[in-house]
Amino acid sequence: MIYVVFVEPETPGNIGFLARTMKNFGLNKMVLINPCQLEHDSYYKAMHAREIVHNRQEYPSLTEFLKEKEIDFAVGTTGTAGGSYNLPRIAVTPDNLAQSIKVDGDIALILGREGDGLTNDELELCDVIVSIPTHGSYPILNITHAAAIIFYELFKNEKSYPVEDLEEASLEEKQGLMEYMDDVLDNLDYPPHKKKNASTVFRRVMGRAFISGREAHTLKGMFRRIKDRVN
Amino acid sequence: MIYVVFVEPETPGNIGFLARTMKNFGLNKMVLINPCQLEHDSYYKAMHAREIVHNRQEYPSLTEFLKEKEIDFAVGTTGTAGGSYNLPRIAVTPDNLAQSIKVDGDIALILGREGDGLTNDELELCDVIVSIPTHGSYPILNITHAAAIIFYELFKNEKSYPVEDLEEASLEEKQGLMEYMDDVLDNLDYPPHKKKNASTVFRRVMGRAFISGREAHTLKGMFRRIKDRVN
Repeated sequence: MIYVVFVEPETPGNIGFLARTMKNFGLNKMVLINPCQLEHDSYYKAMHAREIVHNRQEYPSLTEFLKEKEIDFAVGTTGTAGGSYNLPRIAVTPDNLAQSIKVDGDIALILGREGDGLTNDELELCDVIVSIPTHGSYPILNITHAAAIIFYELFKNEKSYPVEDLEEASLEEKQGLMEYMDDVLDNLDYPPHKKKNASTVFRRVMGRAFISGREAHTLKGMFRRIKDRVN
Repeated sequence: MIYVVFVEPETPGNIGFLARTMKNFGLNKMVLINPCQLEHDSYYKAMHAREIVHNRQEYPSLTEFLKEKEIDFAVGTTGTAGGSYNLPRIAVTPDNLAQSIKVDGDIALILGREGDGLTNDELELCDVIVSIPTHGSYPILNITHAAAIIFYELFKNEKSYPVEDLEEASLEEKQGLMEYMDDVLDNLDYPPHKKKNASTVFRRVMGRAFISGREAHTLKGMFRRIKDRVN
């Protein structure tokens, strides 16, 4: 179970944006710590994730939430990752987090205030701190945009993408394609070294293109027709 | 150079959110296609990225922008990646895009309307389509949250761009390739709808493969030879 915990949200709309982003990546347990008054905007910005706002849980402090829910693993977030001298803020990247996290206990993903983030005391309560690598000219992300990136990394690692009918062509399918093309090349009156070069380029380009099974099928049909014509 | 292109934005605040997210990941060229009236919120939501909104460029249509700026590589985004039967919407993931893209020409990252995204016609103008893997219960992300995730992936991978001396093929070179292929297809006795299908698949696959100028040259030679033989 993953809880998404928003500490002292100040802007009602951000609660909605957070709910929407949660649902986009399959999360649904929202916890608000001492939030602002929720308003219409909290539901409106949630769009089709209003039920997440409706079913939220509220706690007066982060400590009380962590204790009452017996959270096994607390992940803090910070936009201002410290150098090695600021121990509470030494952070991992979202993809490091996603690769190492195991969702078999109760996990809390803790997001800080819009303005000030999490305090050092709150970060001390966390088992790990995550921070998103950003450009030095403006390192601080909007809170729900930061959340979206972290959720995305977790989701990406949980599910292997692409989805079923977008599956990448198998090695066999791609090899079939290459063989047709080599047959075609044999009939194009290339000098041998040029033929080899053309075959290599075609192979590389196809390899790089993440061809789906369906696309491989269409291309194969195309090259079969060409083959028949140049023979 | 990477241009971030927002097609027909409807909500002034989203222009600001987009500007902020761009600056967070080191992007600064914003292009708006036929936008809504900008308002205070467009600047307010940008926070410390107001200059990006201020320096935006506006065009009446996507076609005019792509033509006037001589964009080499157009990346479309969609929240509704097609199954393999909806060819214009066959998409790569943001990390696939980031791993294979090379920023040495002029690239356009094209974001659609808040409500309806990009049209199929607009997607057809793109060399590659990117879509974010999401949970089936609510697959549609807010536009600026989707943008943040794509920018993040590009930024994350920026340092690991393949350092090859080969430059990506220009749009012109690629178009030459497509034209040869269309000539070939005209001579392959395809039923019309199948021909269109094959042409789309070929364009997509080539678009996705980040072909270098040298590779385009070799492939062009190959398709010229094929063309001569099937005529």
